[in-house]
Amino acid sequence: MKQKPNYRLYLVTDAEICPRENLLDVCEKAIDGGVSIIQLREKDISSREFYNEAAALKTLCTAKNVPLIINDRLDIALAVDADGIHIGQSDMPLAAARRILGSGKIIGVSAGNVREALDAEHGSADYLGVGAVFPTGTKKDAKNIGIDMLKQVTAAASIPIVGIGGINHENINLLRGSGIDGVAVVSCIMGSKDPYSAAETLREKTELL
Amino acid sequence: MKQKPNYRLYLVTDAEICPRENLLDVCEKAIDGGVSIIQLREKDISSREFYNEAAALKTLCTAKNVPLIINDRLDIALAVDADGIHIGQSDMPLAAARRILGSGKIIGVSAGNVREALDAEHGSADYLGVGAVFPTGTKKDAKNIGIDMLKQVTAAASIPIVGIGGINHENINLLRGSGIDGVAVVSCIMGSKDPYSAAETLREKTELL
Repeated sequence: MKQKPNYRLYLVTDAEICPRENLLDVCEKAIDGGVSIIQLREKDISSREFYNEAAALKTLCTAKNVPLIINDRLDIALAVDADGIHIGQSDMPLAAARRILGSGKIIGVSAGNVREALDAEHGSADYLGVGAVFPTGTKKDAKNIGIDMLKQVTAAASIPIVGIGGINHENINLLRGSGIDGVAVVSCIMGSKDPYSAAETLREKTELL
Repeated sequence: MKQKPNYRLYLVTDAEICPRENLLDVCEKAIDGGVSIIQLREKDISSREFYNEAAALKTLCTAKNVPLIINDRLDIALAVDADGIHIGQSDMPLAAARRILGSGKIIGVSAGNVREALDAEHGSADYLGVGAVFPTGTKKDAKNIGIDMLKQVTAAASIPIVGIGGINHENINLLRGSGIDGVAVVSCIMGSKDPYSAAETLREKTELL
């Protein structure tokens, strides 16, 4: 039986912003500062390296009681017994992923509009990552949808929604009243010299959402 | 229960040599010409595209009664119910892959020496891909091990062995008496203007191995 995650402060990793040798250290500090769920996102890495990194992060997350989500790679998630996967519109179809993972694992889906959100909800997604809320430099192909579209999605969908894309310590206040369950951040924690404090301050601000 | 594949003429796909829009057509002709097993190998492609391509190839392979092996991506193999996966030394560990796939699926492992071959055999691999037997242009990181090392591996290992790497219509004769169960080829079928004849001629020559 899967636990119901706390989506309040959702950290997505990025090896371009935080070198891989620092990943565990940064994630540990970020969790201690208030990160409630972590997504390991990797591109351009061998499956063996991805597996080794995911296994190490899984050990940390288990010790800290924080769910670990693997971006895209269902095989890596299965191999390290992660808590779930996050898939985008160009990843494996949700139906295929659910068939393999069963109901015991979390599946999150990226959605950029109401149709994608409802398709995912009806297709058994556990939560939605909706964005890019603000312009972002970390995911070049992400379209900036803006806060109005974010609100349309939170109004239409019933499953938990995490806002993602360019969210930082300043603009997070603009998301008040948007109906989201949490914020996903990349660079403002992964790129911080003080990930503990970056997470702590963000976590406090999420309480006002 | 998995069937015991015929490894005699093992085709590995390559999108750089054969454009993706021609994949099914080339594979169908190659099967009709004598290819006995196909490995779908993809890099630099989205998971959705990989899934769609694998699903289409699975339909063809099922109709032709030829096993379909997926390179590296266990999740794609599961999603399309392929017959197995092929993993290299930088892919997921064999033990993790076997744990997920169970005994009902084929797992092949790339080996370049006796130690790698025996590790894989003892780790429950179903077959070995051993090479690069000859210099090859399609896999830049493949070390050329030569026929002597190939013979050392076939002498040491008990599971089926497929020679791979730069094998073509001419040099295949040099593999006579090497103890292999089949040859894996990429460019001399995928890059042929007449994949049916290329496969047919190769298949005839494999009978003399």
